[in-house]
Amino acid sequence: MKTIGIIGGGQLGRMMTQAAKKMGFHVIVLDPGENSPAGQVADSQIIGSWNDPESLKKIVEETDICTYDLEHVDTKVLIELADQGNKIHPDPRVLSVIQDKLLQKQCIAEAGISTPAFIELKDDADFATFGFPLVQKTRKGGYDGKGVLVMKDKTAMAEKLPGACMLEKMVDLEMELGVMVARGIDGDIVSYPVTEMTFDDRSNILDLCIVPARISPELEAKARDLAEKTIEALGGAGIFGVEMFVDKAGEIFVNEVAPRPHNSGHYTIEACVTSQYEQHIRAVAGLPLGSPDQTRPCVMYNLLGEPGYTGEPYLHGLEVCLHIPGVSLHMYGKAETRGFRKMGHVTVTSTVLEDALDKALIVKKNLKVISE
Amino acid sequence: MKTIGIIGGGQLGRMMTQAAKKMGFHVIVLDPGENSPAGQVADSQIIGSWNDPESLKKIVEETDICTYDLEHVDTKVLIELADQGNKIHPDPRVLSVIQDKLLQKQCIAEAGISTPAFIELKDDADFATFGFPLVQKTRKGGYDGKGVLVMKDKTAMAEKLPGACMLEKMVDLEMELGVMVARGIDGDIVSYPVTEMTFDDRSNILDLCIVPARISPELEAKARDLAEKTIEALGGAGIFGVEMFVDKAGEIFVNEVAPRPHNSGHYTIEACVTSQYEQHIRAVAGLPLGSPDQTRPCVMYNLLGEPGYTGEPYLHGLEVCLHIPGVSLHMYGKAETRGFRKMGHVTVTSTVLEDALDKALIVKKNLKVISE
Repeated sequence: MKTIGIIGGGQLGRMMTQAAKKMGFHVIVLDPGENSPAGQVADSQIIGSWNDPESLKKIVEETDICTYDLEHVDTKVLIELADQGNKIHPDPRVLSVIQDKLLQKQCIAEAGISTPAFIELKDDADFATFGFPLVQKTRKGGYDGKGVLVMKDKTAMAEKLPGACMLEKMVDLEMELGVMVARGIDGDIVSYPVTEMTFDDRSNILDLCIVPARISPELEAKARDLAEKTIEALGGAGIFGVEMFVDKAGEIFVNEVAPRPHNSGHYTIEACVTSQYEQHIRAVAGLPLGSPDQTRPCVMYNLLGEPGYTGEPYLHGLEVCLHIPGVSLHMYGKAETRGFRKMGHVTVTSTVLEDALDKALIVKKNLKVISE
Repeated sequence: MKTIGIIGGGQLGRMMTQAAKKMGFHVIVLDPGENSPAGQVADSQIIGSWNDPESLKKIVEETDICTYDLEHVDTKVLIELADQGNKIHPDPRVLSVIQDKLLQKQCIAEAGISTPAFIELKDDADFATFGFPLVQKTRKGGYDGKGVLVMKDKTAMAEKLPGACMLEKMVDLEMELGVMVARGIDGDIVSYPVTEMTFDDRSNILDLCIVPARISPELEAKARDLAEKTIEALGGAGIFGVEMFVDKAGEIFVNEVAPRPHNSGHYTIEACVTSQYEQHIRAVAGLPLGSPDQTRPCVMYNLLGEPGYTGEPYLHGLEVCLHIPGVSLHMYGKAETRGFRKMGHVTVTSTVLEDALDKALIVKKNLKVISE
């Protein structure tokens, strides 16, 4: 059986590893932290940074196929390694485009896909282009709301983000949607059902994912079509998370793409025929893609560390929640909880979406990650 | 988070470990083989036999709760350890009854549950009790058809099994059924849908599991009721596999009980709200039991090593099979394939049972575990 290397040992790498092991692959993880979430369930872990050329070379050489659980890796080294004939998916050249939000958006817009209006930020005069409110984004390195600044008016310029940035016209937001799309090495593309996403105001981390999204069949079809076209434009093999905005007029815009399994696709483990993790492994290993069909309505939410608690995690309220049928708990094996840290997630499935939503809200209210 | 110890590191331990890790538990496995299927995905493995008192003591002392992936363990040591206040589930006293097929059947029969007629084999005169054909079983240590002899007539006595045995009247078999039953520490009991089982004539290993079984609602209800009563009679916390015979007159008999996740319950990973593995972990950890409801019709079969091949496993025909929607492959991470060795299993789900069955038969015909 082949060995898959995963660069990055967080929760996405962990669930990828579990899917790969299920299918019979050996798995080696590269992560700087000992006993990383993915390292705990993999065959072995290389301790090293995903930006260290020697570590990257080591994992690529020790495995048959390499992939990532995060996009912030050194693509220069990976492009060299890929050019030497090593199998690295998605293609590190695609990753280097996606890493830079400006290049990513240019690539998507050039394919004729609707995005919020954007420009490169070259000097302060650019802040006047769209008028306020507007959104400033750092071109590289942002995640979970970090590297994104919503500027209500020009006074916000006093706290503008440093470094290379882009500006976007603020969308008059009605809702956010997510679509997972898988692309095989042969170019075959499948998309998953549309996820309706709500965000936590305090942390800006994804709050509830409701699937299927409560939208019209027309909007559902449009969102999936846009998401597939986006991944066709970017290229590369693997699974991709496509985040979209819908404005108050019902127009839909592609916001951002993640070249990996995505938080908004966790629900696929319980609620779809093929999970996003197995789909990713199938895609990067050159195997046929699986069915993305949904089997049960569901709601997923992130289990964040309760603010005010630091230390070994303890689940307060677990028994009450596990009494509720259809509640599935996923913990990531992180040794320490901290306020708003992603410690796990909960997926609630049911035969009826409203029932799953009601139950998810009960669990969310009662289950807390505190320290022992 | 608590640590669960699993005595035995085979495929059942592996899938138990994966369920336990998903729920946030740490897992330590005890198995004599380095890099065992379960050890590969657990936090650590103690190398040692499940009959070695020192190794058993070590795993019980290093963990908060201990359980097993096989019933052939030294219960004497475990009873002592349980009496000292260690949490070991199912109760090793229950295990010692189940280990001995005669005691097991006596316990079930005494509860008024229908079983094939049986007697202890004391001397050769006993072979005349039920007339031929009859079944001779060793009281302890049998599995996958080993330790079971179907005696067509008295000439078979020349090859009778050695050691302490029992005899059973041969059931005029129409079909075999299986029901997984979970019992919580508080005595709460839930049963899963009924599995229809067919066996491989060459290896006597479970061949196809078809769920739901193609039986009348009355027989389905009767099978689940019998299975639940059987586990009530035996006691203990965890998941149990109850195997049953249906004779040509439509009568149903309890054949045997396995005090652990069971081959006939693999299907629950894809096709039920709560898998048998998560259910077992919930039960032994004193957590509420999950819903056993089935979400999709399915067929499961064991992926046995192709006869004539020994060595590092290679999956011939994988691509063809993964093109079929609803095919889920589970490999156990065994380093070497051998003829008829359980190397993995395949679950095929669909919206319609007949479709799942058709697809499973295509996969079975095309997917072979050979050596590289």
